[in-house]
Amino acid sequence: MLIATPQSMHFAAALPLQSGASIRAYDLSFETYGTLNADKSNAVLICHALNASHHVAGVYAGQDKSEGWWDTMIGPGKSLDTNKFFVIGVNNLGSCFGSTGPMHVNPDTGRIYGADFPVVTVEDWVDAQARLMDSLGIQTLAAVMGGSLGGMQALSWALQFPDRVRHAVVIASAPNLTAENIAFNEVARRAIVTDPDFNGGHFYADSSRPETKPKRGLRIARMIGHITYLSDDVMNEKFGRQLREAVLGSAAGYKYSTQDVEFQIESYLRYQGDKFAEYFDANTYLLITRALDYFDPARGFDGNLSLALARAKAKFLLVSFTTDWRFSPQRSRELVKALLDNRRDVSYAEIDAPHGHDAFLLDDPRYMSVISSYFDSVLKETEAPA
Amino acid sequence: MLIATPQSMHFAAALPLQSGASIRAYDLSFETYGTLNADKSNAVLICHALNASHHVAGVYAGQDKSEGWWDTMIGPGKSLDTNKFFVIGVNNLGSCFGSTGPMHVNPDTGRIYGADFPVVTVEDWVDAQARLMDSLGIQTLAAVMGGSLGGMQALSWALQFPDRVRHAVVIASAPNLTAENIAFNEVARRAIVTDPDFNGGHFYADSSRPETKPKRGLRIARMIGHITYLSDDVMNEKFGRQLREAVLGSAAGYKYSTQDVEFQIESYLRYQGDKFAEYFDANTYLLITRALDYFDPARGFDGNLSLALARAKAKFLLVSFTTDWRFSPQRSRELVKALLDNRRDVSYAEIDAPHGHDAFLLDDPRYMSVISSYFDSVLKETEAPA
Repeated sequence: MLIATPQSMHFAAALPLQSGASIRAYDLSFETYGTLNADKSNAVLICHALNASHHVAGVYAGQDKSEGWWDTMIGPGKSLDTNKFFVIGVNNLGSCFGSTGPMHVNPDTGRIYGADFPVVTVEDWVDAQARLMDSLGIQTLAAVMGGSLGGMQALSWALQFPDRVRHAVVIASAPNLTAENIAFNEVARRAIVTDPDFNGGHFYADSSRPETKPKRGLRIARMIGHITYLSDDVMNEKFGRQLREAVLGSAAGYKYSTQDVEFQIESYLRYQGDKFAEYFDANTYLLITRALDYFDPARGFDGNLSLALARAKAKFLLVSFTTDWRFSPQRSRELVKALLDNRRDVSYAEIDAPHGHDAFLLDDPRYMSVISSYFDSVLKETEAPA
Repeated sequence: MLIATPQSMHFAAALPLQSGASIRAYDLSFETYGTLNADKSNAVLICHALNASHHVAGVYAGQDKSEGWWDTMIGPGKSLDTNKFFVIGVNNLGSCFGSTGPMHVNPDTGRIYGADFPVVTVEDWVDAQARLMDSLGIQTLAAVMGGSLGGMQALSWALQFPDRVRHAVVIASAPNLTAENIAFNEVARRAIVTDPDFNGGHFYADSSRPETKPKRGLRIARMIGHITYLSDDVMNEKFGRQLREAVLGSAAGYKYSTQDVEFQIESYLRYQGDKFAEYFDANTYLLITRALDYFDPARGFDGNLSLALARAKAKFLLVSFTTDWRFSPQRSRELVKALLDNRRDVSYAEIDAPHGHDAFLLDDPRYMSVISSYFDSVLKETEAPA
């Protein structure tokens, strides 16, 4: 059993942001698994997506059900083997799991940031992660890996620091969001922002007021998210039109109510929404969905993705899942094409999985074997003389 | 120019509902276009979907932009030709456009129904529509036609009153909702119900209080709806990643804001949400989405759709649209198969249209020609000696 220990690093130098603003000083929460080898060539950075954190693998001592979010993939003897690689998980700026974010005090004003936390982008996160690598004494990463928004960070690493990344593993991701993706993000944000308890983003308790967490908005945001993470097929298979009462073993007839839970799928979504609203931060939700919206490396190249990716020197593994309609295989293929246009070394696997976007977090044997084979080859390179 | 005149019919006899409740007395708003022929054999009933009404075709005298919601299809010389057919549009019970609904006074209590308006089903609507046909002296309909939820009513007519419908035209519809469809409805309902201004569904002004319309919830509901009515492709084509400011001709750079409108798609969705929240009723939204959820004619037949449709005697035209992911062609094909299992006369057209579910409301030439040819054949039957 891999026991994880959260760590924190303070950065006293201001971080300039893409928006023109900057963060004067900040902390990053992170975890590491495995051992950095003597020539520091076996480090793999894991980037997280919307609601995850630096707790990527292992468990916390004495805490049941505290597995990291990619624990199925990462650990001793697993697809990304922490007996061989030194794996780093880091919580992004603006998140709500330990790194500096909206619920912390702005050193410039002495007040909690709230909605005044500056808008951060994928590129800003990568800049902050690079500073953490500096502090850990890691010049070059064997690999950067992430799924979804995490995949965007892995891609951006290869563009922002082409000489510091040997492999970029980009899973269930895209070169940018489609209009439909932005649309879902926007509805979720409007649900949060128009919740009266959002209070303009300044809802945290302080000496002058108690907390008024916008849970209604967070619930709606999470319910929308969940629908888009699953495929239509897997939702039909898991829930179909099953009635809640029938599942509970009581009456099988309709209750004829507009507000009570009638179908199993409603019960599931309400539960997921309630759980999320307890632990997630509303300002973080706004920030992270906006970072998704803004990411678009081809934007500075008149939309030409091949030109945009010309800077990259890393080798790439891309993985997509057939039933993922949020980040469809077609979007991964756009990346593959643009990398091939630049004669980059690209491996691509399209996994036939029923689970939709969520598949990137699940333990599919074909998926795991693709990851495992790829890291075998990364390891061989690492062990070979330079 | 077809000038439409809304009419209303009062029904003094109670309508028993599927839920076991009943509505003691009620009014139905309707419109008719064209002339009922001598043997009353040319009547076509149009059933509406979520946010539409009895105002199907024509315009209101002196009112700009007052075209009925299916005016592209229905009118003099159009695909459903009102020079030949007597077309009836009817507003469903529980809707907010004139027929008895949640904003009306409950004769049993003397108070506004609000959330106490009884849950109505597709079958209840069809029963109410049948009574309207009785009042209009129409025993047999040449056709019943509807799209989406309207298509479910057309199908249900053929099942509830097999001897009163010669043709059922079921467009962009389905034999029931999938889990994903129910999920989207549920998120929309939660957004409305958890809006503090919903006030338990009793938000209408009366002698004791001013109105507190749950506009935040209605906006979110409508935004979700709009995303699911459009295809990913058409959204990319219409909006893509265009920035609002760039479209307005000012700066083309990001504003780096989580709450301001940044992308065109956001501006479009907010506009649609705002507009809808002004005119639509929150309790009606709950009722109509629930009627969608509940519709499932195979439910009484252990899920066997072929058995469920054995009652139908009508001839059928089914139409679906390739990019409709809310009511996909596959769902129409399930209906076609079940009807063919019963050796029913079925025509089916799968229209290659880019617009998603919204296509059923649009003026696609192939679509219009399918409808027009079908009604030509209906007319020939009508004119032929019995």
